[in-house]
Amino acid sequence: MNAVFDHAGRISAARALLADHDLDVLLLSGGPDLPYLMGYEAMPLERLTMAVIPRDGAATLFVPELEAPRVEVVPELFELRPWTETEDPVVLVADRCRAARRVAVTDQTWAVFLLGLQRELPGVEFVSARPLSRALRVRKDPAEVELLRRAAHAADRVVTRLEATRFSGRSEHELSDVVARMTLDQGSDVATFRIVASGPNAASPHHEPGPRVIGEGDAVVVDFGGKVGGYCSDTTRTFHVGAPPVEFVEAYEAVRRAQEAGVAAVAPGVAAQDVDAVARSVIAGAGYAERFIHRLGHGIGLDVHEDPYLVDGNREPLEAGMAFSIEPGVYLPGRFGIRIEDIVVCTATGVDSLNQSHHDLRIVE
Amino acid sequence: MNAVFDHAGRISAARALLADHDLDVLLLSGGPDLPYLMGYEAMPLERLTMAVIPRDGAATLFVPELEAPRVEVVPELFELRPWTETEDPVVLVADRCRAARRVAVTDQTWAVFLLGLQRELPGVEFVSARPLSRALRVRKDPAEVELLRRAAHAADRVVTRLEATRFSGRSEHELSDVVARMTLDQGSDVATFRIVASGPNAASPHHEPGPRVIGEGDAVVVDFGGKVGGYCSDTTRTFHVGAPPVEFVEAYEAVRRAQEAGVAAVAPGVAAQDVDAVARSVIAGAGYAERFIHRLGHGIGLDVHEDPYLVDGNREPLEAGMAFSIEPGVYLPGRFGIRIEDIVVCTATGVDSLNQSHHDLRIVE
Repeated sequence: MNAVFDHAGRISAARALLADHDLDVLLLSGGPDLPYLMGYEAMPLERLTMAVIPRDGAATLFVPELEAPRVEVVPELFELRPWTETEDPVVLVADRCRAARRVAVTDQTWAVFLLGLQRELPGVEFVSARPLSRALRVRKDPAEVELLRRAAHAADRVVTRLEATRFSGRSEHELSDVVARMTLDQGSDVATFRIVASGPNAASPHHEPGPRVIGEGDAVVVDFGGKVGGYCSDTTRTFHVGAPPVEFVEAYEAVRRAQEAGVAAVAPGVAAQDVDAVARSVIAGAGYAERFIHRLGHGIGLDVHEDPYLVDGNREPLEAGMAFSIEPGVYLPGRFGIRIEDIVVCTATGVDSLNQSHHDLRIVE
Repeated sequence: MNAVFDHAGRISAARALLADHDLDVLLLSGGPDLPYLMGYEAMPLERLTMAVIPRDGAATLFVPELEAPRVEVVPELFELRPWTETEDPVVLVADRCRAARRVAVTDQTWAVFLLGLQRELPGVEFVSARPLSRALRVRKDPAEVELLRRAAHAADRVVTRLEATRFSGRSEHELSDVVARMTLDQGSDVATFRIVASGPNAASPHHEPGPRVIGEGDAVVVDFGGKVGGYCSDTTRTFHVGAPPVEFVEAYEAVRRAQEAGVAAVAPGVAAQDVDAVARSVIAGAGYAERFIHRLGHGIGLDVHEDPYLVDGNREPLEAGMAFSIEPGVYLPGRFGIRIEDIVVCTATGVDSLNQSHHDLRIVE
């Protein structure tokens, strides 16, 4: 999926980071680091897929034998080692780490595999690979930004089509299916998730679409994503069925201004938490400080949530190439919820908003 | 999703198992153990969701504050503890384990959380919760079997409709979308996965559906699943576009006979590996021993792959209530692949096949 990318260069960068962090081996399993470095994504199942990248020496990708035909083998990058149903892949991986002192494991590796490796290698210190993942992936190169932009534009087209869609009389389930279909039709390779939260359900930021039928007077938060060339979209717009009451309009305007103030605050050198604070102060000024119950944003790339996180306490300075969401919200339990989310990229001089879809309240039928 | 189930009784059973295994605390995160015990499923994201069940004392469910509205709180079962964006949930969980000596962690918990807990609790021994998960979930009760049966019958109806569907001229992607739509239309709550593998791609057992256009002379393996009430289906049938050549028919018949011999070998007390051996010997007798490159089957329930595994080396005896797939296959690289898969339940006297869809080769257009 990433044939355009320089996997050899990325693996070299990973090796340099191993040396910098006094690590001997990097172990990669589920999650985005494996596709980033080797162009292959592990299936999230009980049969272990794991890449072993030693600081010195050849890399090996262990896969279940029945999944070996899925792997595009690149001999310069790694040796493919299929394991059979009667082998123990944890022992096979451990055998490549017996001389190691410190081993980094990617975050989404299942605990059962880490516990097995720790049992096999009692003298080895295991640490999170997150600092390496971050260093490798947090700054997007132009080709990555281009895929994020294509993913964002595909999402923008979905929003435009939703504007002309009848909401009233449809269940959240049904509207979620409509969004999934539009996500594919508008150019995403895959539709990854949908939140369709209507009426009081919209006060639950991660609401699972359900049987509730949308009707007149409902606010509807639609938060959805797909992938283009492996890179994620993640966009939220809030719709209103019929004319909204004044209080809703005021809250909506606070979220809109907070979102735009957050975007305007992005620049290299600005601490991540300061962007969160800028947007949060707008919402606090409108009287909703306690109702903005999540961070302002998260990094995005091959994973839908990754570094950097725009959250109070994160003093890390933004850098050119970082891509992340800006997504303030206001949630009033039992009544309504509002969120507006765009993906932006920090540039050398400021910010580039990948989403271009407008922020005015959309009144739908 | 599991309101019909006795979560209090299940948590009591988990506590008894903690005592049996000399464990002080059970930690549950991603995967099916948390919904099995508490009726709530963790989102597979970077914000930690974790339940803490001490052997003695009250259980606590830690969730990100923004996901708290998703949780149906049952005060008799557990205390809900939402954590805010500026708290460290690993420390909050660790604080509940400081008096523990031995702690079990569910298999699908992310390594980053386990490493964090190990850093916070250097004196605590962490072990895999798999023996507890297995003891709790491997024998399905009648209500669980009924949901598995409904899921299987929904899959059977998809197979029947596929028989009347035109394959030729459609890409694997397109046919995969058709299967997803049918899975929902025929009564599954959600469509979880699809393998559509045509022509030479069918020799890759876990093939990802791609742009290849299906045509005359192709064998097409369709392996798909959904969920009903949280319980999974997983069904495979192999279709042929137009009249098949003799060699294909012979291989197909070997797989069909192997599948049926495997099912017939299921009974309480029979070792899991012996069922695998029975089916494997049929395929070996037809000359394809080296081309059946995976185990015969896997348990199924809230998870699509779980204990028991029907694989050489697993001497565990089957017991009444165990549900699992019987899915032999033959894979000829560059040419074709064949797999037939049904879900069955071991009963007190033998076996109950949940799928009822016939095993004859289906010729499609």
